[in-house]
Amino acid sequence: MHGWTGKLLRIDLQDESVKVEDIPEEILLDYLGGRGLGVKLYYDSVSPEIEPLSEENPLIFAVGPLTGIAPMSGRHAAVSKSPLTGTILDSNSGGEWGKEMKYAGFDAIIVQGKAERPKYIVIRDDEISFESAEHLWGRDVEYVTGKLEGLGSVAAIGPAGEKGVLYAAIMNDLTHALGRGGLGAVMGAKNLKAIVVRGSRKPKVANVEKYKEAMMDMVKLLEASPPVNKGLKVFGTSMLYDIVNYLDVMPTNNFNDVHFDGGEKLSGDYIITHYNIRHEGCWGCPVKCKKKDAKRDIELPEYETIWAFGPNIENGDYEKVVEANLKCNRNGMDTISTGATIAMWRELKGENYLEKVEEVMEHEDLKLGSMRIARKYNAEDKRTDIKGLELPGYDPRGLYGQALSYATSNRGGCHLRAYMVAPEIIGKPKLIHRLNPEGKAGLVVIFQNLNAAIDSLILCKFTAFAMTEVEYAKLLSAVTGVDFRAEDLLRIGERIYNLERLFNVRAGFSGEDDTLPEKIFSGKNALSREIFEEMLKEYYEFREWRNGVPTEEKLRKLGII
Amino acid sequence: MHGWTGKLLRIDLQDESVKVEDIPEEILLDYLGGRGLGVKLYYDSVSPEIEPLSEENPLIFAVGPLTGIAPMSGRHAAVSKSPLTGTILDSNSGGEWGKEMKYAGFDAIIVQGKAERPKYIVIRDDEISFESAEHLWGRDVEYVTGKLEGLGSVAAIGPAGEKGVLYAAIMNDLTHALGRGGLGAVMGAKNLKAIVVRGSRKPKVANVEKYKEAMMDMVKLLEASPPVNKGLKVFGTSMLYDIVNYLDVMPTNNFNDVHFDGGEKLSGDYIITHYNIRHEGCWGCPVKCKKKDAKRDIELPEYETIWAFGPNIENGDYEKVVEANLKCNRNGMDTISTGATIAMWRELKGENYLEKVEEVMEHEDLKLGSMRIARKYNAEDKRTDIKGLELPGYDPRGLYGQALSYATSNRGGCHLRAYMVAPEIIGKPKLIHRLNPEGKAGLVVIFQNLNAAIDSLILCKFTAFAMTEVEYAKLLSAVTGVDFRAEDLLRIGERIYNLERLFNVRAGFSGEDDTLPEKIFSGKNALSREIFEEMLKEYYEFREWRNGVPTEEKLRKLGII
Repeated sequence: MHGWTGKLLRIDLQDESVKVEDIPEEILLDYLGGRGLGVKLYYDSVSPEIEPLSEENPLIFAVGPLTGIAPMSGRHAAVSKSPLTGTILDSNSGGEWGKEMKYAGFDAIIVQGKAERPKYIVIRDDEISFESAEHLWGRDVEYVTGKLEGLGSVAAIGPAGEKGVLYAAIMNDLTHALGRGGLGAVMGAKNLKAIVVRGSRKPKVANVEKYKEAMMDMVKLLEASPPVNKGLKVFGTSMLYDIVNYLDVMPTNNFNDVHFDGGEKLSGDYIITHYNIRHEGCWGCPVKCKKKDAKRDIELPEYETIWAFGPNIENGDYEKVVEANLKCNRNGMDTISTGATIAMWRELKGENYLEKVEEVMEHEDLKLGSMRIARKYNAEDKRTDIKGLELPGYDPRGLYGQALSYATSNRGGCHLRAYMVAPEIIGKPKLIHRLNPEGKAGLVVIFQNLNAAIDSLILCKFTAFAMTEVEYAKLLSAVTGVDFRAEDLLRIGERIYNLERLFNVRAGFSGEDDTLPEKIFSGKNALSREIFEEMLKEYYEFREWRNGVPTEEKLRKLGII
Repeated sequence: MHGWTGKLLRIDLQDESVKVEDIPEEILLDYLGGRGLGVKLYYDSVSPEIEPLSEENPLIFAVGPLTGIAPMSGRHAAVSKSPLTGTILDSNSGGEWGKEMKYAGFDAIIVQGKAERPKYIVIRDDEISFESAEHLWGRDVEYVTGKLEGLGSVAAIGPAGEKGVLYAAIMNDLTHALGRGGLGAVMGAKNLKAIVVRGSRKPKVANVEKYKEAMMDMVKLLEASPPVNKGLKVFGTSMLYDIVNYLDVMPTNNFNDVHFDGGEKLSGDYIITHYNIRHEGCWGCPVKCKKKDAKRDIELPEYETIWAFGPNIENGDYEKVVEANLKCNRNGMDTISTGATIAMWRELKGENYLEKVEEVMEHEDLKLGSMRIARKYNAEDKRTDIKGLELPGYDPRGLYGQALSYATSNRGGCHLRAYMVAPEIIGKPKLIHRLNPEGKAGLVVIFQNLNAAIDSLILCKFTAFAMTEVEYAKLLSAVTGVDFRAEDLLRIGERIYNLERLFNVRAGFSGEDDTLPEKIFSGKNALSREIFEEMLKEYYEFREWRNGVPTEEKLRKLGII
């Protein structure tokens, strides 16, 4: 026993009951918090066949040991089964909400059941109440947040979540999103419009002196890192636009090309010289990578969104991107999947929804995402998703590590599972040759494991532009009082990754789903299928998986079975 | 044409002539300086069969574009064929000498021929003179340096170099060494006792504004990096002792074990609490990793030396290490090879030279290094060298990447060609699993190429605890006015590595020499030969080499042929 404790809040919407439980220390030691804790609690709660939009499907929120303590820890994770992919899914978001949840004293919240009529939940430390959301139902996130923010930090769904858009997001603090995979629809299916939380209890640090030292190390590293202090601080994620296009890894026109001419006004340089930028950050963040147009007081889009509503539908008009982004945020829709879905529709049907993205919510095909459209219209060869989740704006044809990480991601086409963008594009922590398959499998595994750990601490992924496992472990040890080494963090990440995979296998996925869209393997910029398969084979060897399935021996070694 | 210029000084000891030439810009663009430039000039000057201790064998000194400009650039390289290994060899050293050479206006110095009687050379800007060294011959480095340092920075050999000890060093600024591979013997065979240099011309920077920015980035990253600001700054390289022993990668008793009990007084912690430390650094270094005992005004040993005279001969008495180190420095002997050679003798003959290391210079077997002893006494299975160069203090059995980098090093058993110690032990730039072969081949190649570039800039390798290719490229671009990207640096490093390899192949080496000592593959801590061979195979694939030999296609792609 180390004395590391955690609290779980169980909420049942059916009977409006709540229950607080202790989280066993073994679970905290093995899964930390955030994504890891959410995945473990979810795995132990359900049968893998569960229907994502059924009332039985739990929606789990979790914060981590560092949340609300360390710099760049203002984040929370949510875990459930995705209605878009059918896989286990974790999503994570910044802002204030996670910090408030932590201050309220909870490490995890399991929301079960379905309310008979629309409700919102208010959590203020130990006081939990269920309130009618009849007056909020149908209203957008901006409206709901405005109505409820006096009570605390607001996480809410917009009309998209209510209408079952399969890529509906849960928005918190107005502009932050649990974006990918449709958790907004899971929440909507529960008749739950919002969770408002405010906490008053500052979490404790086990070893204050050690924490101060580790925290100062972190702050110094962040201040010194050029991608942080010159990139994110100045441009936000739009710093990526020019380099991605320069390297010919900018998916263009629904992935039919890898370079976009005509995006001069989409680049970070253009934006910061033509807009009056206000820098905003999540709780406890010295970087402030979120940018607003100070004049109009509206949020400016992230790189992914610029890509999704820019090159991927051959649009070079930044203002149209800004508008589409606002609409997505207010209606509660993931911008990547929205953009990729309208790009697919544009290619198949010639109709462009860029200036009417809100209409996708009402459209029987568009609301289901690009994979289901491709299937319905016999265009499987046009797909741009993996396991149903649409690929984001880094083209796998020119980024071999990223390609492999996409294919093997447990939640489908996500760039953040290994974030090979950092080594393959930005050169942090180390520049790796993006067009050479050698050694990629091993690295992708290491980066996937590391990111699973970061998502469980939880810290912002951008800390990895400055810190390594060694510094993460020091922070965690100081805060919890438990001695973690760098290797321990990677092992925990590996455990999480394997448990997610095991869920997916039991839900019917196999190695055959670890692939890339047909488009990636054909055409003028094609990635060689042979090279990809060789990398995948090596990946499985490194993972000790057989055809995408963890071996019993591996699961035993990780303490999963 | 970019306007980047370089000067080469040719010195012939035979007729005491000197000649100054321009270095073609293509060579600077392709090989930068330092190691790369030295290797290129050497390759173009000789036939690979050349006898290392013959008077025809040139000894080349070279500095790089950043030398004497950037922080941590107070270094110079020397290149020749090694009498110990028979391979091409570059060595590099810190201190003031390289900066003085640069300030004298030279990027490379080729020393040819042999003086009839002992000489030393004095270089003061363009004035070069040849002086009699009769009164210095036979004297140690301390004496010679004391006599000559009024004229400038002194690089000198001690008695070991004169006597042809095959691992004799060239010492500069009293305590800095071109240590490995016997360049001191090459210098001795030329009857050249010392080169004294002083320069008065500050090198120019092409773009001062950009340089300032890149330099400030570098300084901030160094100040923020824990292995630099908490490790090297406080403990020097002795920071490594505890972690290396903890991980069971401490070669012990001539590599018969991997852990040393009884070295409590060898650790960095012990040393800094029991000695009155004075911190000293090379020119332009804010880190100052060299430590002195302020009370006695003597240098304290580096980690490698502590290992060589400590665990590797089962000695836990730090003061004996200090003394052996002083003797090696004064006599001009590489401490790693000296320690490894006496460890071999101790195992084979039971006699310990620790307290009489100066006697190895007179000993017909010991002066030839451990490989020749093992051969002479039919103990090939006891060898601890690769290609004749003795392995240093990081055990390959517990560090798979380091193992592969040792085996494939162009100069034999050297830890600094890829310096996998950084990712496998220290976790910079990224912690990599040290006991998993997957992906190691690709990484070793990348780190070998990167280190070849760093050795050519020249910057201290410890900068890599804080910086990546991206920052190196920015510094180089600002100083030279030529636009270099991170990828260009890796390509240049690759070119250098292949040219070195091509020399070795022409000198009779092949893939069969890319191996590890028999001891590493047997006994209780053995590295699996199968795993090693699999990594090596992948390494060759990644390198596009066939059985250790660069393919014509590869050489053509690199512009070598």
